[in-house]
Amino acid sequence: MTHSKRIIFFISDGTGITAKTLGHSLLTQFEQIKFDTVTIPYIKTAEQAQEAVDKINQTAKEGTRPIVFATLLDPAMRHIISTSNALFLDLFATFIQPLEYEFQTKSSHAIGKSHTVNTAYNERIEAINFALLHDDGQSYQRYEDADVILVGVSRSGKTPTCLYLAMQFGVFAANYPLTDDDIQTQALPEMLLPYREKLFGLTIQPDRLQKIRQERSPNSRYSSLAQCQLEVQKVEALYRQFKLPFINTTVTSVEEIATSILLNAKIERPMF
Amino acid sequence: MTHSKRIIFFISDGTGITAKTLGHSLLTQFEQIKFDTVTIPYIKTAEQAQEAVDKINQTAKEGTRPIVFATLLDPAMRHIISTSNALFLDLFATFIQPLEYEFQTKSSHAIGKSHTVNTAYNERIEAINFALLHDDGQSYQRYEDADVILVGVSRSGKTPTCLYLAMQFGVFAANYPLTDDDIQTQALPEMLLPYREKLFGLTIQPDRLQKIRQERSPNSRYSSLAQCQLEVQKVEALYRQFKLPFINTTVTSVEEIATSILLNAKIERPMF
Repeated sequence: MTHSKRIIFFISDGTGITAKTLGHSLLTQFEQIKFDTVTIPYIKTAEQAQEAVDKINQTAKEGTRPIVFATLLDPAMRHIISTSNALFLDLFATFIQPLEYEFQTKSSHAIGKSHTVNTAYNERIEAINFALLHDDGQSYQRYEDADVILVGVSRSGKTPTCLYLAMQFGVFAANYPLTDDDIQTQALPEMLLPYREKLFGLTIQPDRLQKIRQERSPNSRYSSLAQCQLEVQKVEALYRQFKLPFINTTVTSVEEIATSILLNAKIERPMF
Repeated sequence: MTHSKRIIFFISDGTGITAKTLGHSLLTQFEQIKFDTVTIPYIKTAEQAQEAVDKINQTAKEGTRPIVFATLLDPAMRHIISTSNALFLDLFATFIQPLEYEFQTKSSHAIGKSHTVNTAYNERIEAINFALLHDDGQSYQRYEDADVILVGVSRSGKTPTCLYLAMQFGVFAANYPLTDDDIQTQALPEMLLPYREKLFGLTIQPDRLQKIRQERSPNSRYSSLAQCQLEVQKVEALYRQFKLPFINTTVTSVEEIATSILLNAKIERPMF
């Protein structure tokens, strides 16, 4: 049983994104098992809940017991889903009760609150626009509004990191590519000097950089291993010279890079 | 006690992103309470865990009992954190045990698995590059590789939605702005016709659109209410004429828009 493919259902009366995030984190702890996922969001009616149960039970008949990760706020929906032949992991009910007791108040059971349009949301959208406008050194007019300015050689991971910081945390992140010229002179570009406290460097293993550049611009000087080695070596020297914090992105995800940047800059964004 | 500001700690030996996501979802159910958050990621040593406990206990001394949302895989770290004077909500331990029993196997307790660089991750980075290259009708060379092509008037929310679809789900999303010309002729742009099955429309309330455009280009024809009303009316007529699925983004978050798009297109991306 431990080696067959297990079917995972993410069931929600909202988007199901919270169920997916926690479910994914938990299941990555069972590397020897293969999973397939089925997401059923926006369950609003008893009919939709019963349809989901039928789908779960059909899967149960065909193989091993499915697993349900559920975020259901409506007790009626939750009851229907709980009747299925799955292992039912109820993320909200498990933790809402101790929180209600702690706060000495009932939760609102209002659906769609976690991914809604509010001040924190609008700030995140603003941050995405900021990241796009200040991507790749295109503009540095509003660097004074930036929470962080990423620097690094071309294709070291600056853009996805800025977008993730914006999307997930509403952090205003610009990025500036360190070019051959900057690297040769071993100096920080002039427009970055007033913002030295906001700078965070990215670096990457030269052979990985070479592979990424090769896909973009095959067999060029830009994508040669010698050029990649030179740029990485010089840029790391520059980071050390100017005492910039930096991280190697070769085997580090944008989530991990972003977490390190926030930790270093002591940025904690209001979530509510 | 119910109206004072509560301090929430997100404690993790990884990024803490999973703890934040579930914690945020749960706490939005208590609208009458104000929260401040403290994130402590990357706890690797007993000293770091003890420092976190000291910080939590300091907060406990100053006000009401703090809440800890923890994702800790190392039992030694978990034990130390559990000794703090907080309400300790342990996201992993709660669900790992039933899963271990279900799978009849021990979990790996390997840290940093949920936000790691693997095939699914590389696909997400590819999808971000795809979204940037195919943003705002810049390019339509690889529309055949798109999972979905968003259409809508300028500033209706296409770009953040595409980036979210890419970042969160690894979905290849392009977007194409419907201009005055397309709207006047009441026809879909020619290059979209072969991909009609991939199209998804965004619309927005004219007064909201006017506000957004006003910030970008004040007192122009583009940002006049009359122009916004005209464009929205015509574009919705176009969606109906071509039977395109569409959604109103006025009070809908990118998470909710993305979920509706995936549901409509029946897209379920491998997460593992």
